[in-house]
Amino acid sequence: MSAGDDGDRVRAFTEFRERMNERILAEPNQVVRRFFALDTQAYQAGALDVATKELLGLVASLVLRCDDCISYHVARCRDAGVGRDAMFEAFSIGLVVGGSIVIPHLRRAVDFLDRLESGADAPPDGHHHD
Amino acid sequence: MSAGDDGDRVRAFTEFRERMNERILAEPNQVVRRFFALDTQAYQAGALDVATKELLGLVASLVLRCDDCISYHVARCRDAGVGRDAMFEAFSIGLVVGGSIVIPHLRRAVDFLDRLESGADAPPDGHHHD
Amino acid sequence: MSAGDDGDRVRAFTEFRERMNERILAEPNQVVRRFFALDTQAYQAGALDVATKELLGLVASLVLRCDDCISYHVARCRDAGVGRDAMFEAFSIGLVVGGSIVIPHLRRAVDFLDRLESGADAPPDGHHHD
Amino acid sequence: MSAGDDGDRVRAFTEFRERMNERILAEPNQVVRRFFALDTQAYQAGALDVATKELLGLVASLVLRCDDCISYHVARCRDAGVGRDAMFEAFSIGLVVGGSIVIPHLRRAVDFLDRLESGADAPPDGHHHD
Amino acid sequence: MSAGDDGDRVRAFTEFRERMNERILAEPNQVVRRFFALDTQAYQAGALDVATKELLGLVASLVLRCDDCISYHVARCRDAGVGRDAMFEAFSIGLVVGGSIVIPHLRRAVDFLDRLESGADAPPDGHHHD
Amino acid sequence: MSAGDDGDRVRAFTEFRERMNERILAEPNQVVRRFFALDTQAYQAGALDVATKELLGLVASLVLRCDDCISYHVARCRDAGVGRDAMFEAFSIGLVVGGSIVIPHLRRAVDFLDRLESGADAPPDGHHHD
Repeated sequence: MSAGDDGDRVRAFTEFRERMNERILAEPNQVVRRFFALDTQAYQAGALDVATKELLGLVASLVLRCDDCISYHVARCRDAGVGRDAMFEAFSIGLVVGGSIVIPHLRRAVDFLDRLESGADAPPDGHHHD
Repeated sequence: MSAGDDGDRVRAFTEFRERMNERILAEPNQVVRRFFALDTQAYQAGALDVATKELLGLVASLVLRCDDCISYHVARCRDAGVGRDAMFEAFSIGLVVGGSIVIPHLRRAVDFLDRLESGADAPPDGHHHD
Repeated sequence: MSAGDDGDRVRAFTEFRERMNERILAEPNQVVRRFFALDTQAYQAGALDVATKELLGLVASLVLRCDDCISYHVARCRDAGVGRDAMFEAFSIGLVVGGSIVIPHLRRAVDFLDRLESGADAPPDGHHHD
Repeated sequence: MSAGDDGDRVRAFTEFRERMNERILAEPNQVVRRFFALDTQAYQAGALDVATKELLGLVASLVLRCDDCISYHVARCRDAGVGRDAMFEAFSIGLVVGGSIVIPHLRRAVDFLDRLESGADAPPDGHHHD
Repeated sequence: MSAGDDGDRVRAFTEFRERMNERILAEPNQVVRRFFALDTQAYQAGALDVATKELLGLVASLVLRCDDCISYHVARCRDAGVGRDAMFEAFSIGLVVGGSIVIPHLRRAVDFLDRLESGADAPPDGHHHD
Repeated sequence: MSAGDDGDRVRAFTEFRERMNERILAEPNQVVRRFFALDTQAYQAGALDVATKELLGLVASLVLRCDDCISYHVARCRDAGVGRDAMFEAFSIGLVVGGSIVIPHLRRAVDFLDRLESGADAPPDGHHHD
């Protein structure tokens, strides 16, 4: 697969996420809308800084094995200044806690990180919602 | 992606499900065949009506995060007369119980529902088996 | 175990839940407090009635295998007028979707329901928070 | 805790399981009753022998982290002639696939196996139902 | 989809897995590298033979619902001489323990097995890592 | 329950964990022993400090809902200097990612933390293994 295809795939995914988030938030369901707001609030700086909170979101996503959530938090960690070594230490904790069933997700996470680092992808924008 | 592509994707998925169900049920394994029969029986009207039972299947599928099962029950709920508001209330319970890890599946569920409502897809046929 | 012991156990559990909920809500963490409020809001009557929503919470709890949550929703379903037959149909969907790994939780759920029906337990009070 | 207390705990657990299984099977819910029958049938000798099937049930229970199911299959494996070395190899696969989150269950599994081997416990009887 | 397309898809997947495994193992993170080594070691012959261990890995993957892991162990089981009947008995235990939520994964597992048996795919090579 | 009883319960749990860990590590199964070593290694200081790594273990344990693991990491976080506010921010991320099904575990985590802070419990010793 060429880098161009990769870029297209990431753009298609990002476009889908943005479009569906708007669609969901336009719905007159207050519980869903409040949940999305809470999801954003949970990662804001407090006693713990943003980088640590995004790492927490990353490891939670790894052990629960959700590729979209993992990609999202990998990008956010990177935006928050988490380096590759630190990212791999977080991966290693997710792997040890969650077991070998995490490995296929780890492969895709590393692939996504590689592409981010090679500049193939624009990072997702600032809204949370995994 | 055009509506035509969407229709093709749904048709391909439905065709795969039907083909593999036949393949599995043709196998001389009585436990598997009885399980499939039980899966159909569980959703038949009783003290609870079909719409309620399909909503139960939908929320169970949401919190266990299985896209194929979610799409299946969204379509079945709609066939059973569940409206969009009720569907979103079921989504909201799945979201609160299951957490933000459910969000990527919720996006795909809403996308699937939107396409069903726009008439792009034929609903799956009457056999259960998720 | 005597009925008296059972009553004590349920009272001890209810007392612990109430005490810890208060403790948690007294904490200056807005995300946690808002989450608890959202958890209550999700089960209020809307397009779906309370009984249906509590059944959704029950089946979600069954397939995710959380005894405290199951007991909680069994009691709430009963308060909302869900009969034993309907409860078992919900159990059967949880069992089919979630598999035999649900069985130990089903045993405890039925035991809890039996005790509720025999009047041994006071139902939990009106606050949600599973 | 004395061996006598252990024996009492196992007897109490076995008695509860047997009593609740009877209670559940007496209920007029055909889906639940058929599921229990299927659960028994799945472990009967076929192309795979009983020992192998019980090992499969054991590892499935380990990675899904259900103590009651783990104890049940440990006892059944032992009845089927699975030795301690083979049991630990199954444990090790459950541990590697499922990760360190399995460790607390592994501790209780080994404790249960130790007590079985020391003759403190009568093995559970021949009905399945985890 | 033609057999040629299938072959391409399997080759693309295998190529991705091999490439990412090399990428991950080249990383200076000892925990991750040791975990991968342990994952290989867990399936080597001991008190249990390789076929039994791969069946354990298969059922664990089924109930945890990881398609990549399931395909991997289906191919390894077949290499170890596990026949179609035995494979379906393992599937049936995964289905009963894990419930109907396993069905979509079972469909893909059977499709993968069919393609292996029809000779469309080369089996994956000898390294483990799911 | 009196503070004395609490202390007894924690001591009994700690004693059980230590005894079973020794028992498991005495077993001639190299995969299990290496896994335990890896579990300890994963939390050692590197690019991320011990406090951050223990917070990662805590949130992973919360979303996977293992009480023993949660208690363990709460104690270890506290030993590593994580304050109550930071602990609750980690709890809030676990709650948002994992959903209301996490609440019963959150109650027990807060209860455990309260008891640690009141000096009722000696912290667990320095070996990992959750």
